Amino acid sequence: MSLPAPALHATSSPVATLPPSPEAIAAVTRALAASFGNRLVTSLAVRQQHGHTLTWITNQPPDAVVFPQSTEEVAEIVKLCASHGVPVIAFGTGTSLEGHVNAPYGGVSVDLSQMKRIIAVHGEDLDCVVEAGVTRKELNEHLRDQGLFFPIDPGADASIGGMAATRASGTNAVRYGTMKDNVLALTAVLADGSIVKTSSRARKTSAGYDLTRLLVGSEGTLGIITEVTLKLHGIPEAVSAGVCPFPSIKAACDTAIMTIQTGLPVARIELLDDIMIRGVNLHSKLGLPETTMLFVEFHGTEAWVKEQAERFGEIAAEHGGGPFDWATKAEDRTRLWQARHDGYWAGRALRPGADTLATDVCVPISRLAECVEETKRDIEASGLIAPIAGHVGDGNFHTQPLVDLADEDEMERCRGFIDRLVKRALAMDGTCTGEHGVGQKKMKYLEAEHGAPALEMMRVIKRSLDPQNILNPGKILVL
Amino acid sequence: MSLPAPALHATSSPVATLPPSPEAIAAVTRALAASFGNRLVTSLAVRQQHGHTLTWITNQPPDAVVFPQSTEEVAEIVKLCASHGVPVIAFGTGTSLEGHVNAPYGGVSVDLSQMKRIIAVHGEDLDCVVEAGVTRKELNEHLRDQGLFFPIDPGADASIGGMAATRASGTNAVRYGTMKDNVLALTAVLADGSIVKTSSRARKTSAGYDLTRLLVGSEGTLGIITEVTLKLHGIPEAVSAGVCPFPSIKAACDTAIMTIQTGLPVARIELLDDIMIRGVNLHSKLGLPETTMLFVEFHGTEAWVKEQAERFGEIAAEHGGGPFDWATKAEDRTRLWQARHDGYWAGRALRPGADTLATDVCVPISRLAECVEETKRDIEASGLIAPIAGHVGDGNFHTQPLVDLADEDEMERCRGFIDRLVKRALAMDGTCTGEHGVGQKKMKYLEAEHGAPALEMMRVIKRSLDPQNILNPGKILVL
Repeated sequence: MSLPAPALHATSSPVATLPPSPEAIAAVTRALAASFGNRLVTSLAVRQQHGHTLTWITNQPPDAVVFPQSTEEVAEIVKLCASHGVPVIAFGTGTSLEGHVNAPYGGVSVDLSQMKRIIAVHGEDLDCVVEAGVTRKELNEHLRDQGLFFPIDPGADASIGGMAATRASGTNAVRYGTMKDNVLALTAVLADGSIVKTSSRARKTSAGYDLTRLLVGSEGTLGIITEVTLKLHGIPEAVSAGVCPFPSIKAACDTAIMTIQTGLPVARIELLDDIMIRGVNLHSKLGLPETTMLFVEFHGTEAWVKEQAERFGEIAAEHGGGPFDWATKAEDRTRLWQARHDGYWAGRALRPGADTLATDVCVPISRLAECVEETKRDIEASGLIAPIAGHVGDGNFHTQPLVDLADEDEMERCRGFIDRLVKRALAMDGTCTGEHGVGQKKMKYLEAEHGAPALEMMRVIKRSLDPQNILNPGKILVL
Repeated sequence: MSLPAPALHATSSPVATLPPSPEAIAAVTRALAASFGNRLVTSLAVRQQHGHTLTWITNQPPDAVVFPQSTEEVAEIVKLCASHGVPVIAFGTGTSLEGHVNAPYGGVSVDLSQMKRIIAVHGEDLDCVVEAGVTRKELNEHLRDQGLFFPIDPGADASIGGMAATRASGTNAVRYGTMKDNVLALTAVLADGSIVKTSSRARKTSAGYDLTRLLVGSEGTLGIITEVTLKLHGIPEAVSAGVCPFPSIKAACDTAIMTIQTGLPVARIELLDDIMIRGVNLHSKLGLPETTMLFVEFHGTEAWVKEQAERFGEIAAEHGGGPFDWATKAEDRTRLWQARHDGYWAGRALRPGADTLATDVCVPISRLAECVEETKRDIEASGLIAPIAGHVGDGNFHTQPLVDLADEDEMERCRGFIDRLVKRALAMDGTCTGEHGVGQKKMKYLEAEHGAPALEMMRVIKRSLDPQNILNPGKILVL
C-alpha cells in the first residue's frame, strides 16, 4: 500500500474574494441594523475611529461598526458575516500601533467596549473572569479593595481582550510575564460562529493542544476573544522604585543583565535614553538629568525590598551608575510610572505636530546594549528624531521616530531605518516585535524571522480555522 | 454575492487506514535498515521496551525502532513513513504514564536518545539550546559549573524533548512554571517531513502564532520535537527546605493557599498524605511521622530565605501544623527531594508485586482540600490502596492505586475510582490532567473537559497539520 505523500498545502481552502461586493456589505449592514438597532453605526466619523489612528499608518475604516453585549451576539455577527463572506475585525480600544484594527477590505468592526462585565473574582485562587471589553485600569480599580492586582501594563489603558489578542506585555513583564503567561483560559468565537471555551481555571494542564496560547497573539485572525480568565497577583506588601542615571547605554544594559543574572526578582527595569528623558521632562515635568536612565521597581516584604534595592544599587555602582533617587512614597512612584507610561506622548512632545512610527523589537539580553547603541547611531546618521525606551529585563525596546508625513524624503529615511532596525534584531536572534504585534506593518518581516516552513505552518492553521479568510484579513499572514 | 457558510469540517482530509498493511511496514523497515544499519532494530525485546511499560496500560510495541542522530535524519524517517502511510511515534525515555508511546497501529518508534548534544549555553541570556534526547539530569550536570540550572523536574529523569512534548512540570513549577513557560523555541519535524524552527531566543515576541506552545504538549501528534531552546535560571545563592506535619489535608492545603496568596515565592510546596509518607518511609528510610506532610523549599539570598521560612512557619502554625524540621545542609535536602521524586517507587513499596495506575488531576487551589479529601474517602470506600502526593501550590495532585491486574473485581473498582476522580476535578473547574498528559487513557475525558467546539478545533488543527494521521495516531484525539 502506498498512500500519496502528504502535503501541508493539501488542506488549503479557497480564500474568499476580498473585498466583498457592495451588495454583501449592504445585506450584512441591513441585517445588523435590524438586530442591533442603534448599536450598529455607519457614520464616517465612527468608522474612521475604528480604523488605525495612532501612528503614520493610513486609516482604513470598516464599512460598519457594531457593539455587541454578549458572546452570543458576537457569534450572531460572525455567522451573518460568514454567510456573506464579509470581513470581521475585532476592536478593543484602538491603541494598537501596527495597523491591527484597519479594515483594508472593509467589513464589520466588532467593538467589544460594551462587554465590560467582571464576571467573577476568585480571590483564593488568584484569578478572575472578565469580558473582553474591560480595560486593565478598570480591572485594577475593581480589584484594589481585595488586595489583588493584574500586572500587565502596556502604556495605554487597553482592553483585556485586545491585550490577549496581541499578546501584550509592558513594564512588569520581566517579573510577571506577558499575556501568554497570565491568561488561563479564553472564550472565543471562531470563523464559523462556533463558541469555544479553552481550558479551565486549573493553574496548569496537559489536557490536549494549547488553544489558549494559539489564540493569544493571533490578533483576531483565528477567533474573536470575548471572555478571558486571568491570573491575578497579591498587591505586594512593600514596593520601592527608583531612578538611576548611567554614563552610557552599555553601562545601563550591563546593570540590567547582572540584575537578572543574579536572580534579583526586579518587578520593573526600564531603560530611557537621553532623548526620551528629554521628552519625559517636557511632558511630565520630572526634571531628570538628560542622560541614559534606568527606572526600576522592587516588590516584596519591607525587608526584602530593602535588600533588593541595596543589591541593585551595588550592581549599578559597579557599572558607573548613580546616584540613585529612591521613591518610597506611593504618589512619587505613581508619578514616575505614569511618566513612563506616557512615553508615547512624551516622545511626541519632542516635535509638536509631528507624526510618529512607534515600533519595537526584542533581542537576547546579551545583545541589547549593542542593538540599542547601533540603533542610536543609525538614528543620528539618518537625521531622525527618535527617542528609545525599553523593557530591558526582557531585551525589548521601543523607538518612536517623529516624522512629517508630508516630507517624502524624511519618510523614506524613516522606512529605511525601521527595516534596518528589524534586520539588526533578527541578526541577533531576536524578533521583529516583542510586544506590539504584527498587524499590517510587520507582516513583511515574518518570513525572515520564522523561515518559510514555520510561516507555512501558520498559514495551514489559519486556512483550516478560517477557510474564507474573514477574520481580520490582511493581518499577520499573506495567504 | 453570497458565499457558502463556512464549516470547520470542510477542511478535514481523509484519514489513512490504520493499521498500515504488512507490505507498507516491510517496505519502510527495509528502507530504514538500508539507511540506518544497526540503528534500526526490530527485535521483540527492544520493540516492547518502546511500548508502554510503567503502568497497567497494555504494552503495544511498534514494528521497528530507529535511532536517528540529527533533525535531518528524523525528517528522512518521517518522509519515508509518510510516503507509505506508516505511523511514527516519538520516543524519549519512555517514562510517560498514560500510554503516550504505545503503538496501537504499529509503525516506527523514533527513539531520540542518540540526540544528546548540548548545542549552546548562553549564560548571559539564561538560555540554552539542546537536542531532544538530553535528559534533565544530564543538562543540570552540564550546567552546574556555570552556576545555572533548569528547574523542571518530573519525577523521572525524562528527556527534554519528551518533557516538551508532554508539557511536563514537577515540584518546582509553582515558582518556575512548566515546560510551556520554559521553552523559548523548538525545532520540529512535521508530518510531511518539513523542518520548522519556531521563534527565536528573544524572551518575548508578538510575531505571529505561538507555534512553540502549540507543539508543547502535543505529545508527538503534530510534530516530532528534535531541538529545544530552554530558559535557564541562576542557582539560588541560598536554599532552605523543610518538612512540616499537619493534622489534616485541609490544614495543609489551607497553609499552601495562604502561602501563595501572601506572595511568598515558595519554590516547592509538596503535599504527601499519610499513605504516601508510609511508602516514602519504606522506600527511602526517612522515618517521618505517618501523617499529612508538606515538603517545602525556598530559594533566594540568605536573609530572604530565612524570612520566607519564618513566614511560612507562622502560616503553618496558624493552621495547626508543626513542628518543622528544616534541612539547611545540601545533602539532607537532596535526600528529601530524592525521596519525593521516588514517590512512584515509594508508592509501589506499599504493595510489593502490585501494578499501578498512576494518574493526576489539577483543580483551582481553593477546591484542593475538598478534592483531595473526597478522593481519600473514595479510595477507602473503593477498598483500594492509593497514596496521594501533590504539587499543591498549583492545585495538582497524583494518586497511584496499587492493583493486581489479574483481579478483575479490583480492576473494575479502580477504573470506577479514576472516572470519579476526573469527574470530581472537572466539576471543580479543573482539568483531567495537570502534567501527565492525555496519551491513550485520558482521551475519553477531553470532551467533558473542553466541550465539543474546542475539541473540534483541536481536530481541525490535527487534520490540517497531519492529514494522514501518521504522527502518534490513537493519542489525544479520536479523529
